[in-house]
Amino acid sequence: MPSPRVQPFTFSVGPVTASPEALVALSAPIGYDYDPVYLDTYERTLAKVGELFQSAGDIVLMQGEALLGLEAAARGLVRPGTEVLNLVNGTYARLYGELLRALGARVHEIDAPDDDAIDPADVARALEQHAGIEVVAVVHCDSTAACNPIAEIGPLARSHGAVTIVDAVPTLGGMELKVDEWQLDVCVSAAHKCIGATPGLALMTVSDAAWARIEANPAAPRRSYLSLLDWRAAWFGQRRFPHTTACSLVLSLEAACDAVLREGLDASIARHALAARAARAGFRAAGLEIWARDGVQANTITAVRMPDGVTDESLRARMRGAYGVVMHRTPDSRQFRIGHMGMTASSLYPLVAVGAAVQSLSDLGVDVDVGAATAAVLAELAAADQAEAVGRSGA
Amino acid sequence: MPSPRVQPFTFSVGPVTASPEALVALSAPIGYDYDPVYLDTYERTLAKVGELFQSAGDIVLMQGEALLGLEAAARGLVRPGTEVLNLVNGTYARLYGELLRALGARVHEIDAPDDDAIDPADVARALEQHAGIEVVAVVHCDSTAACNPIAEIGPLARSHGAVTIVDAVPTLGGMELKVDEWQLDVCVSAAHKCIGATPGLALMTVSDAAWARIEANPAAPRRSYLSLLDWRAAWFGQRRFPHTTACSLVLSLEAACDAVLREGLDASIARHALAARAARAGFRAAGLEIWARDGVQANTITAVRMPDGVTDESLRARMRGAYGVVMHRTPDSRQFRIGHMGMTASSLYPLVAVGAAVQSLSDLGVDVDVGAATAAVLAELAAADQAEAVGRSGA
Amino acid sequence: MPSPRVQPFTFSVGPVTASPEALVALSAPIGYDYDPVYLDTYERTLAKVGELFQSAGDIVLMQGEALLGLEAAARGLVRPGTEVLNLVNGTYARLYGELLRALGARVHEIDAPDDDAIDPADVARALEQHAGIEVVAVVHCDSTAACNPIAEIGPLARSHGAVTIVDAVPTLGGMELKVDEWQLDVCVSAAHKCIGATPGLALMTVSDAAWARIEANPAAPRRSYLSLLDWRAAWFGQRRFPHTTACSLVLSLEAACDAVLREGLDASIARHALAARAARAGFRAAGLEIWARDGVQANTITAVRMPDGVTDESLRARMRGAYGVVMHRTPDSRQFRIGHMGMTASSLYPLVAVGAAVQSLSDLGVDVDVGAATAAVLAELAAADQAEAVGRSGA
Amino acid sequence: MPSPRVQPFTFSVGPVTASPEALVALSAPIGYDYDPVYLDTYERTLAKVGELFQSAGDIVLMQGEALLGLEAAARGLVRPGTEVLNLVNGTYARLYGELLRALGARVHEIDAPDDDAIDPADVARALEQHAGIEVVAVVHCDSTAACNPIAEIGPLARSHGAVTIVDAVPTLGGMELKVDEWQLDVCVSAAHKCIGATPGLALMTVSDAAWARIEANPAAPRRSYLSLLDWRAAWFGQRRFPHTTACSLVLSLEAACDAVLREGLDASIARHALAARAARAGFRAAGLEIWARDGVQANTITAVRMPDGVTDESLRARMRGAYGVVMHRTPDSRQFRIGHMGMTASSLYPLVAVGAAVQSLSDLGVDVDVGAATAAVLAELAAADQAEAVGRSGA
Repeated sequence: MPSPRVQPFTFSVGPVTASPEALVALSAPIGYDYDPVYLDTYERTLAKVGELFQSAGDIVLMQGEALLGLEAAARGLVRPGTEVLNLVNGTYARLYGELLRALGARVHEIDAPDDDAIDPADVARALEQHAGIEVVAVVHCDSTAACNPIAEIGPLARSHGAVTIVDAVPTLGGMELKVDEWQLDVCVSAAHKCIGATPGLALMTVSDAAWARIEANPAAPRRSYLSLLDWRAAWFGQRRFPHTTACSLVLSLEAACDAVLREGLDASIARHALAARAARAGFRAAGLEIWARDGVQANTITAVRMPDGVTDESLRARMRGAYGVVMHRTPDSRQFRIGHMGMTASSLYPLVAVGAAVQSLSDLGVDVDVGAATAAVLAELAAADQAEAVGRSGA
Repeated sequence: MPSPRVQPFTFSVGPVTASPEALVALSAPIGYDYDPVYLDTYERTLAKVGELFQSAGDIVLMQGEALLGLEAAARGLVRPGTEVLNLVNGTYARLYGELLRALGARVHEIDAPDDDAIDPADVARALEQHAGIEVVAVVHCDSTAACNPIAEIGPLARSHGAVTIVDAVPTLGGMELKVDEWQLDVCVSAAHKCIGATPGLALMTVSDAAWARIEANPAAPRRSYLSLLDWRAAWFGQRRFPHTTACSLVLSLEAACDAVLREGLDASIARHALAARAARAGFRAAGLEIWARDGVQANTITAVRMPDGVTDESLRARMRGAYGVVMHRTPDSRQFRIGHMGMTASSLYPLVAVGAAVQSLSDLGVDVDVGAATAAVLAELAAADQAEAVGRSGA
Repeated sequence: MPSPRVQPFTFSVGPVTASPEALVALSAPIGYDYDPVYLDTYERTLAKVGELFQSAGDIVLMQGEALLGLEAAARGLVRPGTEVLNLVNGTYARLYGELLRALGARVHEIDAPDDDAIDPADVARALEQHAGIEVVAVVHCDSTAACNPIAEIGPLARSHGAVTIVDAVPTLGGMELKVDEWQLDVCVSAAHKCIGATPGLALMTVSDAAWARIEANPAAPRRSYLSLLDWRAAWFGQRRFPHTTACSLVLSLEAACDAVLREGLDASIARHALAARAARAGFRAAGLEIWARDGVQANTITAVRMPDGVTDESLRARMRGAYGVVMHRTPDSRQFRIGHMGMTASSLYPLVAVGAAVQSLSDLGVDVDVGAATAAVLAELAAADQAEAVGRSGA
Repeated sequence: MPSPRVQPFTFSVGPVTASPEALVALSAPIGYDYDPVYLDTYERTLAKVGELFQSAGDIVLMQGEALLGLEAAARGLVRPGTEVLNLVNGTYARLYGELLRALGARVHEIDAPDDDAIDPADVARALEQHAGIEVVAVVHCDSTAACNPIAEIGPLARSHGAVTIVDAVPTLGGMELKVDEWQLDVCVSAAHKCIGATPGLALMTVSDAAWARIEANPAAPRRSYLSLLDWRAAWFGQRRFPHTTACSLVLSLEAACDAVLREGLDASIARHALAARAARAGFRAAGLEIWARDGVQANTITAVRMPDGVTDESLRARMRGAYGVVMHRTPDSRQFRIGHMGMTASSLYPLVAVGAAVQSLSDLGVDVDVGAATAAVLAELAAADQAEAVGRSGA
């Protein structure tokens, strides 16, 4: 059935299917970025991003992929010899450790199995043992879709006097994330994930404590594309930009934020949770195994243990070729992964994702129960609506 | 799960989910409609619409809903006393009969059950009995999704010396439709159905025989919004327009035609056929009954017998409210209807439509097998791909 | 300098250079037109169109070019023998008289020179002389850009017991137009003029008196694309549509209305007035003659007497070919015409229009003062800003 | 006249008024960036960017502002002690010298007055004197709109064995730039200048010689957002991306390249040249002075000596406030600057820019001749068309 001309369904872990609001806003004409109308737009957009982060602190939109923001945070906070606690339960954290070491940091790592979360007790212990730790780096939800309890880790770090760098790339807008309440210092996300805009902007919060450390760090980039301080001096100092801003992406980001805020951040998060729950129910009913253990699973990505005899390539080729459904390349051959972000965390998108994956596995010779899988997705959604209706009538 | 903010899936019978190509082209800037650049665009677009109709004859884009084109055809070809054969197996044909009678036509009608097609033998007999019949009106696919054999009816009418008015609104681009080969005279369709553009243009073919009759008809509208002759005189006579053209819709129509032609008209039709087959398989596996009998079912609409105790309103409310899926209002309480047109006749859209409808019926207390239904949709799609693969390797 | 690829400036009298807001909204996805979200949009849009018309009465959006609305009004209000007073000072009124006569109306006409307005005293006299007049038809601003005092004509007609049909196609949003205060009954405009949307919708007000007459008219179209009564029964009776609505155009119309209302209707009108004033100053300084006499000139169109030896074709070819500026084809070889509508009634658009026209005339051998013309446009705009600044500081 | 709601004319030096093609393409839906359809798009886009650069070498699209590309080039090619020849006749070159020094380079500088070009003889001499020079950095057109003869500097550098870093940010697509023929090694431009797309992508050529040096440079960034080598290894090695690509910006870039290539690169350059010539004629006729000396003036920016008593702020405020025209903030109080890039290097845009600037200066009390200025712009355009017509008829 799929045709080269017809838009496939996309369940990547980013870039996601952009929301109509974000796409439409991209085609608006742009003007000079120092025109007062644009400056106002920019300021408004920062405020809206702050609402999503639940932070009253400074918001920086670095102009590039999320990795730009994560690298800028590391370079801003680390100089040779800085002691960093890096919490590792997945690929992204592991790679971040490499970056930190390359910058000369003395990195302490806590490793958890990649289907489980970091235990805050381990963090507390490590901070106690290593009084010199200045920075704690943690990924909210790593590649295996196991989430870490950053609500507890943030306060631990702060009470220790360390600042946190939080990779919240795939969670902002899709999972609970309270930057100020959880005492997170530098939190990095992206426009092209749960918010539903398109790639090109790294969204960051920077706390006063983080600014102070970066300012004090002689190794922090200055007059560089990687410099947070350039943004601080330019925007917060003089309402200027260190370089021309990506106007179209900013207009689109505002529209995407508006859409989430109109829906309500809590409603958006609940929607992502339900989509993930439905997908997990479907995969389990098919006879498959969810990678991360219960209680630590992300709402925005579902990672499933890959059945024997199937490769990521063969599965993706079948899903795309026979059903017009695109799945993210896996970085880990033991799994396949489905994104539930923005649009695809709504309506019957989980049915499409589960249906395509399970039927394709069946086509490839795996013994899975397609009907049970799809029925389970629908039953989960039906039950959720029922529960909500009961909630409404009971109120 | 559904939220007011999130775009629902739409399976209406029109307007359909517009294709990205059509939507993107809508936002292009427009200029003066007599600017040479636009005149060229207009001419190109007519040619492309002609390709879709498989007609080398004149193409007229009346600027309004499809009904404008159907009314213009009737008014152009009928004057008081004109004998018309109206072929009726559904609501649209019935209403067209009323219009013809209101214009003073002497209307002969052949009625077929609304789950079946008109029998060409009946048409031949009627034309023989009523030598004065000048016009034959037929709906390609009426409200109940039963299709008529216009490939046979066209030549019968022409050999009799009558001209045909064919309502092909929901079939152009989605079912076989060969205007010239099938000797159809006035064939009316719309931009917002299988082609995937948005509403506002009636697409029409007009044969030389039809033009001759309209010119000769003193009652045919002239200097009127309903006048085909105004378009003939203006565009075909002088490359002018009788009134300002709907530039944005024309740009979008061209983009939509381009997309279909790039895919290939046959591929597009095959895609619609598969989507309908998959939906029918799903509904049957659920335990439901397809309205039209086998062999006459449309590829672009599936009408299903409504189970006892469920109303169109309750079913649509549940589908929209719990699953974010929108279905067309039914004009007939004995059925519910799903469109497979454009985008929604691709990928796993049939799974979404069947899944939402069947689960909602289950939620409303109907005894249906949700898992069997969804599995049957997927199995049909899997088998089609297999068959195609065999075809490819055998070639 | 112009290149086929580069967007020319367009100063047609419609379709106009669409506003960014209107264009961007066109590319939004559409859904089923009976989806509650769309029904709300539709209702909101009607209210906003009503604000522009300054009318609390019923608003109908007929789905086609403005001529559809004008024809529907005539057919709704006229039956054979209806006495109509048609006020003529230009081409559109003359053509409307033909339509009225074709419908069997007994048409009384008052003719004014085509560079002047209809005198309300003449209207009063005609109404007195012909007690049977039931309908008064008047064009707010006809092809020669001479405007009629409909603020006075409306009350005259109503006190006589007649209903008015007002062609306000090129004035809504660009000139004062107070439908209720001026006691106008059926007022017809379009989306693709001063409001800045694109063609395809006729915007209409219908007063209760007009509805009553149409309902009582046995010749009024029913079950027809030209039927106002179908819209009344469907929308106002049942919140339904007589046929699928042009969803994209409606979304775009709402965005265009929002933009005008955000600016303020008065500000929009003042902007159009200034643009026209600047253009007139420019043409006069060039040594050319404005067609309409002072005091009756439109704010939305400027018609200039064509210098000897120049044809519309040669002038337009030069403007397009050498300067990338598109002007409307003239219906009258004695003039050329520039539109000031929406976007082109802002900023330095009048400089572009005057500059291109005057320089082209000079290129074609006409003795005009290019520098004086362009300087006069700028001086007029400079003075307006000065005056406004004085106004502000004086307040 | 200007209103907050109405889109102003923008003559910034970037971001420029984006072309319709680029804007429309921005709103296209995006998919997963490893989907085969997108990979093909990406590859096609690189080829088209190569055509604009007139280079068959590797093209890299770094995902950020142009400065990202310029910094990446410096960091890739420079390590502590690298001898660099930096050619300075404006602000951007001066700042680049600071960056080079910050990276530890031993920088030799040739200074030319900022209204003049670098003399290639001076370059030859410097290369001779300093045999160790490995890199030559030159700006094609610096802030004062004086251009450097990179066609001569490129071969000088190559014959010396040095690689060049060329800042061609505001010239690609608007001025002659033949990367391969001129033997340029790393040439950096941007999407949001003459090509008419929107900001967010740095467009770069990298020659084999440059790659070899970067690979050999231990200080070159690796596993960093600033790393050219990451792009080489990922894209050229494995058809992968080092991080998620900015899909929307890439789709838009392709559309913008298509538009330029459809027009023809030479035609595009000629159009920019004419726009600049017309603007210079206008400013001179007003009585103002063009900053750069004849023969070295850019086609894409015109810098004018600021009259006494006027500040950049007051001039820009008047232009925006009274005429709805936006001009770039000047980095140099002795000048004001107008961009002619993309759309604004066509049609009567130069008339708008000159008209607004000169009238505003007059409003601010400067003795300028507005009529002479605007007439001179138009005369220059008229003469160009005449000349072209003669050319055509003579052919």
